[in-house]
Amino acid sequence: MNPGNPVYDYMVNKEPYYHPQGDEIALFTAAYARRLPVMIKGPTGCGKSRFVEYMAWKLGKPLITVACNEDMTAADLVGRWLLDAEGTRWQDGPLTVAARYGAICYLDEIVEARQDSTVVIHPLTDHRRQLPLDKKGELIQAHADFQLVISYNPGYQSLMKDLKQSTKQRFAAFRFDYPETKVETEILVREVGIPEQTAEQLVALAKSSRNLKGHGMDEGISTRLLVYAASLIADGVPATRACRMALMDPITDDEDIRSTLEHAIDATFN
Amino acid sequence: MNPGNPVYDYMVNKEPYYHPQGDEIALFTAAYARRLPVMIKGPTGCGKSRFVEYMAWKLGKPLITVACNEDMTAADLVGRWLLDAEGTRWQDGPLTVAARYGAICYLDEIVEARQDSTVVIHPLTDHRRQLPLDKKGELIQAHADFQLVISYNPGYQSLMKDLKQSTKQRFAAFRFDYPETKVETEILVREVGIPEQTAEQLVALAKSSRNLKGHGMDEGISTRLLVYAASLIADGVPATRACRMALMDPITDDEDIRSTLEHAIDATFN
Amino acid sequence: MNPGNPVYDYMVNKEPYYHPQGDEIALFTAAYARRLPVMIKGPTGCGKSRFVEYMAWKLGKPLITVACNEDMTAADLVGRWLLDAEGTRWQDGPLTVAARYGAICYLDEIVEARQDSTVVIHPLTDHRRQLPLDKKGELIQAHADFQLVISYNPGYQSLMKDLKQSTKQRFAAFRFDYPETKVETEILVREVGIPEQTAEQLVALAKSSRNLKGHGMDEGISTRLLVYAASLIADGVPATRACRMALMDPITDDEDIRSTLEHAIDATFN
Amino acid sequence: MNPGNPVYDYMVNKEPYYHPQGDEIALFTAAYARRLPVMIKGPTGCGKSRFVEYMAWKLGKPLITVACNEDMTAADLVGRWLLDAEGTRWQDGPLTVAARYGAICYLDEIVEARQDSTVVIHPLTDHRRQLPLDKKGELIQAHADFQLVISYNPGYQSLMKDLKQSTKQRFAAFRFDYPETKVETEILVREVGIPEQTAEQLVALAKSSRNLKGHGMDEGISTRLLVYAASLIADGVPATRACRMALMDPITDDEDIRSTLEHAIDATFN
Amino acid sequence: MNPGNPVYDYMVNKEPYYHPQGDEIALFTAAYARRLPVMIKGPTGCGKSRFVEYMAWKLGKPLITVACNEDMTAADLVGRWLLDAEGTRWQDGPLTVAARYGAICYLDEIVEARQDSTVVIHPLTDHRRQLPLDKKGELIQAHADFQLVISYNPGYQSLMKDLKQSTKQRFAAFRFDYPETKVETEILVREVGIPEQTAEQLVALAKSSRNLKGHGMDEGISTRLLVYAASLIADGVPATRACRMALMDPITDDEDIRSTLEHAIDATFN
Amino acid sequence: MNPGNPVYDYMVNKEPYYHPQGDEIALFTAAYARRLPVMIKGPTGCGKSRFVEYMAWKLGKPLITVACNEDMTAADLVGRWLLDAEGTRWQDGPLTVAARYGAICYLDEIVEARQDSTVVIHPLTDHRRQLPLDKKGELIQAHADFQLVISYNPGYQSLMKDLKQSTKQRFAAFRFDYPETKVETEILVREVGIPEQTAEQLVALAKSSRNLKGHGMDEGISTRLLVYAASLIADGVPATRACRMALMDPITDDEDIRSTLEHAIDATFN
Repeated sequence: MNPGNPVYDYMVNKEPYYHPQGDEIALFTAAYARRLPVMIKGPTGCGKSRFVEYMAWKLGKPLITVACNEDMTAADLVGRWLLDAEGTRWQDGPLTVAARYGAICYLDEIVEARQDSTVVIHPLTDHRRQLPLDKKGELIQAHADFQLVISYNPGYQSLMKDLKQSTKQRFAAFRFDYPETKVETEILVREVGIPEQTAEQLVALAKSSRNLKGHGMDEGISTRLLVYAASLIADGVPATRACRMALMDPITDDEDIRSTLEHAIDATFN
Repeated sequence: MNPGNPVYDYMVNKEPYYHPQGDEIALFTAAYARRLPVMIKGPTGCGKSRFVEYMAWKLGKPLITVACNEDMTAADLVGRWLLDAEGTRWQDGPLTVAARYGAICYLDEIVEARQDSTVVIHPLTDHRRQLPLDKKGELIQAHADFQLVISYNPGYQSLMKDLKQSTKQRFAAFRFDYPETKVETEILVREVGIPEQTAEQLVALAKSSRNLKGHGMDEGISTRLLVYAASLIADGVPATRACRMALMDPITDDEDIRSTLEHAIDATFN
Repeated sequence: MNPGNPVYDYMVNKEPYYHPQGDEIALFTAAYARRLPVMIKGPTGCGKSRFVEYMAWKLGKPLITVACNEDMTAADLVGRWLLDAEGTRWQDGPLTVAARYGAICYLDEIVEARQDSTVVIHPLTDHRRQLPLDKKGELIQAHADFQLVISYNPGYQSLMKDLKQSTKQRFAAFRFDYPETKVETEILVREVGIPEQTAEQLVALAKSSRNLKGHGMDEGISTRLLVYAASLIADGVPATRACRMALMDPITDDEDIRSTLEHAIDATFN
Repeated sequence: MNPGNPVYDYMVNKEPYYHPQGDEIALFTAAYARRLPVMIKGPTGCGKSRFVEYMAWKLGKPLITVACNEDMTAADLVGRWLLDAEGTRWQDGPLTVAARYGAICYLDEIVEARQDSTVVIHPLTDHRRQLPLDKKGELIQAHADFQLVISYNPGYQSLMKDLKQSTKQRFAAFRFDYPETKVETEILVREVGIPEQTAEQLVALAKSSRNLKGHGMDEGISTRLLVYAASLIADGVPATRACRMALMDPITDDEDIRSTLEHAIDATFN
Repeated sequence: MNPGNPVYDYMVNKEPYYHPQGDEIALFTAAYARRLPVMIKGPTGCGKSRFVEYMAWKLGKPLITVACNEDMTAADLVGRWLLDAEGTRWQDGPLTVAARYGAICYLDEIVEARQDSTVVIHPLTDHRRQLPLDKKGELIQAHADFQLVISYNPGYQSLMKDLKQSTKQRFAAFRFDYPETKVETEILVREVGIPEQTAEQLVALAKSSRNLKGHGMDEGISTRLLVYAASLIADGVPATRACRMALMDPITDDEDIRSTLEHAIDATFN
Repeated sequence: MNPGNPVYDYMVNKEPYYHPQGDEIALFTAAYARRLPVMIKGPTGCGKSRFVEYMAWKLGKPLITVACNEDMTAADLVGRWLLDAEGTRWQDGPLTVAARYGAICYLDEIVEARQDSTVVIHPLTDHRRQLPLDKKGELIQAHADFQLVISYNPGYQSLMKDLKQSTKQRFAAFRFDYPETKVETEILVREVGIPEQTAEQLVALAKSSRNLKGHGMDEGISTRLLVYAASLIADGVPATRACRMALMDPITDDEDIRSTLEHAIDATFN
C-alpha cells in the first residue's frame, strides 16, 4: 500500500502473536473472500480483538478499530461538518474512511452503541454495499477491500442492549471462548516468558474462576488478566500477591467470592 | 434523465434480481400511477428493499433510501442550515431532494425514527403533496414523479414503537413474507450458483427455523442468511460449518434453540 | 393581496372540494369575525385540515399550516437567530409570519408538540393578541387578519398528551366526525369518479370498521383511505385487492380484526 | 417615561377594564410600596393577568410579561450571548431588562418553568435585590421601580410541579377565584354588550360547571370562555350553539360530563 | 482592596444586620483561618445567606454568591469559551474568579446542582486547593484568601438529591435553625420598626406554624416572611390581612392547615 | 524534565506526606514497570489520591488528575475542536496530553463518569496502548512513560454505577482502607501538630463511627475529617465543638446517629 493512501497508517505491519483455537482463520478468510460482514461473539479478554488484528495482518488490509460506547452517534462513525477558516469542511468518520479507501472496519462492543450507529451500517451490509452520507449529500460505494467486523459479548446482552434482528441477520458469526488449557498455557509462556509450571497453575486458577460465573461472578478471569499476573511474577512479585492484585481485586468485591478465590490462590502457590 | 439532474446518481441503472411473489408488481404500479404513498410490511431480510429497488428500476425513477433510526430527527430528512464562508447555507435533506427533483423516497424501518421524522411526511401524503421547510421559509410543491415509500417490520411493533394511526391512514400497504419454497430455492440457485439440491436443503432448514418463531426465536432464518450460507458452501466451506456460521450463530445464543438447530443442520448435511 | 406581501404564497387560490357536514361554515365565520381562536377536534382523516383550507379560501386569507411534532420547540414556531455573512440575522417562524402579516395559522395535531410550543400561543389568544419575541426583544401586536386555529384528535388524548386547561380555555371548539353515509358516498363519487354503487359499498365497509373501534381497532377506516381504495378500483385494480391494500393492511396487524375485515370485504364484493 | 427608555414600549397606556373583587388593589399597592415580590394564585381565566396589567397601569410602571413553559431556561429570562458581525454580543433577557430599567416583571404560570428559571429569581427576591449575570460577569442592582410578580394555578400543582418552599417563602400572596355572580354578570354586559338576562344565564351555567370540578371536570368554565360565548351570541349565533362551541366543546370530551352540560345548556336557553 | 481588582465589586461594604445565635462567628473565623471548606445547613429563610454575607464583611473579603439549580453545569461554575471577533475567548466562571483572585465563593443550595457542579469543587477542597480548567488546559492554584462555602436545606434532602459522602467529607459544618424567640422579636423590631408587642405576636404565630412541620406543612413560616408581614403592618395594612397575605397564602394550599393558621391569626390579632 | 515540555507543570516537585500502609509502594512500582493500568479502590478520604500523588513524585513522572463526574463526556478526556480566529483548532484533553507527552493520568472516581468516558480508555489499556482521536483522524501511540490510574469507591457501587467487566478486566487493583490506628494517629500528629493523646482520642472516635457503617451511617469518619478537627483544636477551638463541626455535622442528619456520636464525643473529651 502506498504511504500516501489515507489508510496507510492503519496497516498492521508486525504479525501479532495469535494462537488459533480451531478453523477460525480459514473461515474468516472465506467470509472475507465474499466480503460477508462478520460478527465475533465471546467473553471479555478472550482474544477477539487480537484475532481481528491478526486477520488484518494476514489479509494485508488496513484495520480501523472503533471502541463503541453508549454516547456514540452515527456522526461519530460517518463524519461531520467542521467549521474552518473558509467555512464548513466535511470530515469523514472512521467508517467512511474505511469504506472509501478499503479498510477492515472493526466496531468493538457494538451493543454499547446507540441504535443510530448500528442502523447506519445496514446499507453497507447488504447487496448494495453503499454508505449514504445524508448530511453531505454523497452516496459512497464501498471500496472492493472494505469489510465490516463487529464484536460483542453475549454475556452482557440484556433486553435493552441487544442487537435488533434486522442487524443480526446481516452477519456471519464466530463464537469465541477462552482458549483451551494447553493453548492458554502456551500463550503465557510465549508472551511473558514464565516457566510452564507457573503458567499451568495460573490457567488452572482461571479455569476454576470461570466455573463460578453465574454463581456470584459476572465473568471469569480473562486471558488478559493472566498475562498481567504472569508479568508481575516474572518481575519478582510474589505469586500470591500478584494473583490477588491481578486476578481477584480487579473483578470482584463480593466477600464470599473473594474468600473462595483467596483460598484457591493460597492453595495453588503455597 | 439528464446527468446534471441532482438525483441522476440515484437512478437504478441495472435491473436488480427480483423474483415476484404474487401480483405485487402490478399493484405497486397502480399505486404509483396515483402516487399513493406506499407502506411495505414484512420480516427482516425477506426482500422488501430489493422490491423497492426493483420497482424504481422498472418505473425508471431515481430511488433515495434512508435507513431510519431512533436518533434521526426531522432535520435529517428535510435539511438544515450549514455555516459557510459567506454565512449560512441551506442543505436539502434526502426527503427534500426527492420531493424537489422527483425521486422515490424510501424510508426504511420508519418505526425506528423519532416522531418528528414521521409527522414531517404528513403534508406530503395528503392531497396537498407539499413539504413546508419551516426553517427556511419555503413551501415545496412535490415534483410530479415523487412518491413516498416506507417499510417496517410488524414483528417488532411494540406499543412504544408503532406508527400513529394518523400516519398509517396515509398509506396503501403491501404485506411481504419469506418467498415460497420453490421461489426461495430458485433465488439461491440463481444468485449464488449452488446445486438445486443443496438449495432445497438450505430452504428446508430455514423453513423449520421459521416455525420456531415465538418459541424462543425472535425471527426465523432470512433469505439473506441463506444466501450467505450458500456463498460459503460454494467457496468450499463444509455445509455444516457454513450453516452454523451463517444460519445459527448470528441469530441466537439461546442454548435450547441452538441445540435444536444444530441437530437440524447435522441431520440435513450428514 | 399584493404579490410582494410575505404571505402571498400562502393564499389558497383554488376552491378546495369541501362538502359541509352541518352549520360549521357559518360558525367558523362568526368565530373569525371576533377573531376567536378555534380548536378543531376529530378522528384521523375525517376532513379537519380540508375544512380549514376551505375556510381560508372562503375568507380570502392566507393559510400557514404547521404539522406539530414532539420535537418541535417554541423557536420552530416563533423564529430564531441565524448566522449570516454579517453576523446573526433573525428569521421569523411560521407563527410570527402569520401574526405579523395577517394569516390564519393552523397548528395541526397540537397535542404532539412540546409544551413550550403551546404556551407560546397564550398571549396571542387572550385580549392582548400579542406575540413577545423574547429572544429578539420585540413585542408583536397581531395583524387584524390573524387568527389561530389548532386541531387535535381526542381519541389519542392520553394523560401525558393532553392540552392544559389553561390552553383549552382559550379556544372556541368544533367537533368533527366522519361524514354521514350520503355525504361520504358523494365525496367518493365526486373526487374519484367511481359509480355510486361502488361508493356505497366502500362507505358501508368503512362504517362497519368504525364500529370495531375500541374492540381491537385503534381507529376506523378514514374517508382518506376510502378515496385511496376508490382510486385503485377506478384504475382497474380488483375491488377485493384494492380494499385489502388500502383499507385493511395499512391500519391493522391484529389477526382477528384482519379476518373480520377480510370477510366483510369478500362479502361486499363477491 | 421617556420614549428612549428601553422599557417605554411596555407601558400600559390605556386603562384595562378591571372589576375589583375585594381589597386586592390596596393590598397590591402596599406590597409594591415595599417592593415585596408578589405571587398570584387562582384558576385559569379568572382574571389574574388582567389584574397585573391593571396594577401596572395604575402604578404607572411598565409591565414585562413572560409566559413560562417547561422548556424555558434561565438564559431565556436572564439573557445570552449572541453572535454578531463583531463577535459575541450580550442580549438582556426580559427579567434583566425589567431589573435594569425598572419594570414590573410578570412570570405567568411560573410552575411550568424549569427550576433554574425559578432559582434565578432568588437573589432578586431577598434583601439584596440583585441579579448576577454569571455568564456576563455582571452584578445588577435592581432598579428602584422593579418588582417581581408570579402567578400559578394551585389546581395543577402536582408533586412534580410545585414551587420549592425556598421559592415560596420569598413572596406575599394573593388568592384569586372566579368573580362573584353579580360582578361576573356585569363583566359580560360591559365587555360584550349582551342583555343582562343573557349574561345572568351564562354565569349561572358557568357556576354549575364549577361545581363539577373534581367530579370529572378538571376545571370549571372560566370568565374568558363566558366572554367568548357572549360574543358569538351578540353576533347572532343561537345561544345553544354558542354555548356548546365556547363553553362545552373546548374543555371536555368526557361523555357523561358533556351530557350533563348539554342538558344544562338546553334547559337554560330553550 | 484595589478598585482594579476583578473581585473589587464583590466586597461587602456595609455591615449587614446580623444577630448572632451562638458562637458561630468565632467558629467560622477559626475555619477561615485554616481555610477549611464550610457547609451551612438549615431551613429556608433562617438567615444562612445573611450570615455568610456578614462573615465576608467581617473578614473583609469579597463574596461571590451562586444560586445553584438543577440545570447548572460545571461550566457555569468554572467558565467556558466564548466566540469573539478574534475567535474564541475564555471567560472565567464565578468559582474560577473567586479561586483566582481570592474571594469567598458561596454556593447557595448546592444539592440542587447537577453532580458535575459538585465534583468540580473536589480538588479545591483537599490539600491541593487546585482548580483544573480541563477545557482551557490551565491548573489554577487557589489564591490564599479563597474559601468555599456551601449551604443546603437538609429538610429537602431526598435520596435523589443528597450530597455524596465523598463531597460531604470535605467540609466543616454549621447547623442553623430559626432564631430564638427573643432574637427573632428583636430582628423584627430593628429591621422594620414595629412595636415589640406586635413583633412578639408575629413570632408566636411563626413558632406555632413550625410545630406543624411534618403534619401537613412542608416547612414553617420563616423569619423572612415575618419581616414581610411586619412591613405591611407598618405601612397600615390590617394585621390579619397582612398575616394571611405574607404568612399563610404563600406557603400552603392545604385547606386543613389554612384553617388552623387562620384561627391562629384571628386569635392573635382580634 | 524540560520546562518547555507541555506536561512540565504537572510534575510533583515536593514530596507529599505519605505514610505507607503495607507493600503498596513496591507493588505500584512493579505495575508501573510493566505499565499495567492500575485501579485503586477504597472509602472516601482514606488517602487514595495522596498515594497516587506520592507515587508520581517517587517515579518522577508528571501527574494529570481528572475528577470524573456524570456529565463528563469522552470529549472532555480526549479533546475537541475549538473555533479560532483562523477556523477550528484542536485542543487535546487531559487524557490525550498524558498519552502524548508521557504523564500518569489519574481518573478520580471513574464510576461517576458516563460510559463513553470509560470505553475511550480501552485501547490505551491493552497491548496496543493507542488512543484513536476519531474526531481528529489521528491515532496516538502512547508515550513510553504514560500510565493510566483510576480510582473508585466500591461502597457506592450500585447496579447502575459499576464498571463493566470489560473495563475491570484491564486493570491490576489495589484495595485501600483507612490507616491502622497507629498510622492514623501519627498522621494527625505529623500533619497538624496536636499532642499524641488528642490524636489517639480522635482516631478512637473515628474508629467507632466506622463500625456504624451500614447501621445508619453511609460511611465512617474519614482521615481527612480527623485532620480538620485536629486543625480546629490546634487553633484553640474546644475539642467537643471542633468534633461536632468537623466529625458529626458534615456527615449525618440522622437524629439517632447524631445522638450516638454526640455521646461518644462528650465521653471522649469531657
